Amino acid sequence: MFNIQQYLKEQRQVVEDGLQRYMLQEQGNFSAHIQSMRYSLFVGGKRVRPILCLAAGRAVSASLDVEEQLLPAACALECLHTYSLIHDDLPAMDNDDLRRGQPTCHKKFGEAEAILAGDGLLTYAFSLLSHPEIPGPATATRLQLIHVLAQAAGSQGMVGGQYLDITNEEKDIPFDLLKTIHRSKTGALITAAVHIGGLAAQADKKQLQALINYGDAVGLAFQIVDDLLDVTASTEQLGKTAGTDAQQGKATYPAFFGLDKTRALAQEAVHSAQEALASFDERAEPLRALAQYIFNRTC
Amino acid sequence: MFNIQQYLKEQRQVVEDGLQRYMLQEQGNFSAHIQSMRYSLFVGGKRVRPILCLAAGRAVSASLDVEEQLLPAACALECLHTYSLIHDDLPAMDNDDLRRGQPTCHKKFGEAEAILAGDGLLTYAFSLLSHPEIPGPATATRLQLIHVLAQAAGSQGMVGGQYLDITNEEKDIPFDLLKTIHRSKTGALITAAVHIGGLAAQADKKQLQALINYGDAVGLAFQIVDDLLDVTASTEQLGKTAGTDAQQGKATYPAFFGLDKTRALAQEAVHSAQEALASFDERAEPLRALAQYIFNRTC
Repeated sequence: MFNIQQYLKEQRQVVEDGLQRYMLQEQGNFSAHIQSMRYSLFVGGKRVRPILCLAAGRAVSASLDVEEQLLPAACALECLHTYSLIHDDLPAMDNDDLRRGQPTCHKKFGEAEAILAGDGLLTYAFSLLSHPEIPGPATATRLQLIHVLAQAAGSQGMVGGQYLDITNEEKDIPFDLLKTIHRSKTGALITAAVHIGGLAAQADKKQLQALINYGDAVGLAFQIVDDLLDVTASTEQLGKTAGTDAQQGKATYPAFFGLDKTRALAQEAVHSAQEALASFDERAEPLRALAQYIFNRTC
Repeated sequence: MFNIQQYLKEQRQVVEDGLQRYMLQEQGNFSAHIQSMRYSLFVGGKRVRPILCLAAGRAVSASLDVEEQLLPAACALECLHTYSLIHDDLPAMDNDDLRRGQPTCHKKFGEAEAILAGDGLLTYAFSLLSHPEIPGPATATRLQLIHVLAQAAGSQGMVGGQYLDITNEEKDIPFDLLKTIHRSKTGALITAAVHIGGLAAQADKKQLQALINYGDAVGLAFQIVDDLLDVTASTEQLGKTAGTDAQQGKATYPAFFGLDKTRALAQEAVHSAQEALASFDERAEPLRALAQYIFNRTC
């Protein structure tokens, strides 16, 4: 039986070490600014995206030195994710005071400073991916990683999804649009995480497509669970303010389907994710367990 | 005698055509978001950075098809520049209502929408530079361009400079810090523009260094002139609110040196820029004329 708790603990440490190694250090005139970026990056977090990325690389290749070759890209993913949280929490957006049980970046440092911390982390992700002195896959593959990440994070991915999310508050939206919001706002970066893991490990076309299908399903499960937790968990459990979706009049899975059906849909997405990996051997066991772990957060 | 006005007119058209060709089109669910990005990108602007980029490429290589190979990178520069204006104008930052004679992005579309328009343009710059179906230099060079741009735009460049700028309002700062602010906030992206032009044209080490020196000097001249214009020009002439530096208690060249000495320093920077190009032949004439043009904006 695969021990997911032990695995997550070890992998989180790998990611923390990577972030410490590859993240900008506070230095010179820019120290205060870099401190605000590091605050949000190191305030906590499950590191799900980088862990998925590393696990995808290992599922494809036994010979790739994943921790050496893929870790910088995994860290870039976490920079992108963190920037998106900082900007989403801003007063003009979701106006959240708490994130991971701590004051949000703008509460701690001020609003202008938080906008710039987000801008800095977003830009740094691409600096890291293209850095000539930081290890990574071959040049052509690096360029592919950059493109996959920029597409997933951009206007037809995460940024576009956030736009649809905030501009559709208090509106009756069709279920199709809710799916688009989830897929772009949350799903795109999760899919990109396993996609770039596969690319770095030189996955063939079939393997890449399987990883993308897995990522799409896991991303969906993740967002459904997030919707559920916003209803069922306390602020203390979440580390961020609970119940904000209903408060902000956001469309969610529970609002469409009720809690029971929503749970069933989440479990269905987890099964789809696991099915997508049918052609992978036991090296994909962590990916399979990660999908189930995401569902178990609801229980 | 080199006709700079005619040159600028032609080159602006080249850049406009490039932006129309390479910028995201409004489509599907993300149309409204992409519209807000396109609004700020196409509302006007001198296109100085892309023009410098193309001119640097041509100064190095007569054989490079600059308009085909370098234009996407030049457009990415303009995306980065535009995003920085959108975020700088936000209520939490400089709180400007006017830009290029038109309502700023947040005035036109709302604050959250403007933050996301900036995020989208920033991310799209890297999407464009890494796009497998968009022309550009060889893969290894592309990766270099991405790194140079990410460094220039990031926390030790443009974003870091903006942080220093807003956190030092109403403060007596030493001249050294003012120079750092100017160099990072404005200078870094201008230097990157000619740097990536040179890289794409396969400049040798000496040529690259000359272009970087030119960029540093032009960037300095540009910022000194901007400081001057904020004092001497009207809101109508500027297309943005005049006199805001003094209003916001910002350190500027005129505040340190008075108008006459500031003008002399700007002209000195222009001479340094032109001197940096001493080893280039007549193909660098546009770069030389562009340096002088930047100074002439004050007259």
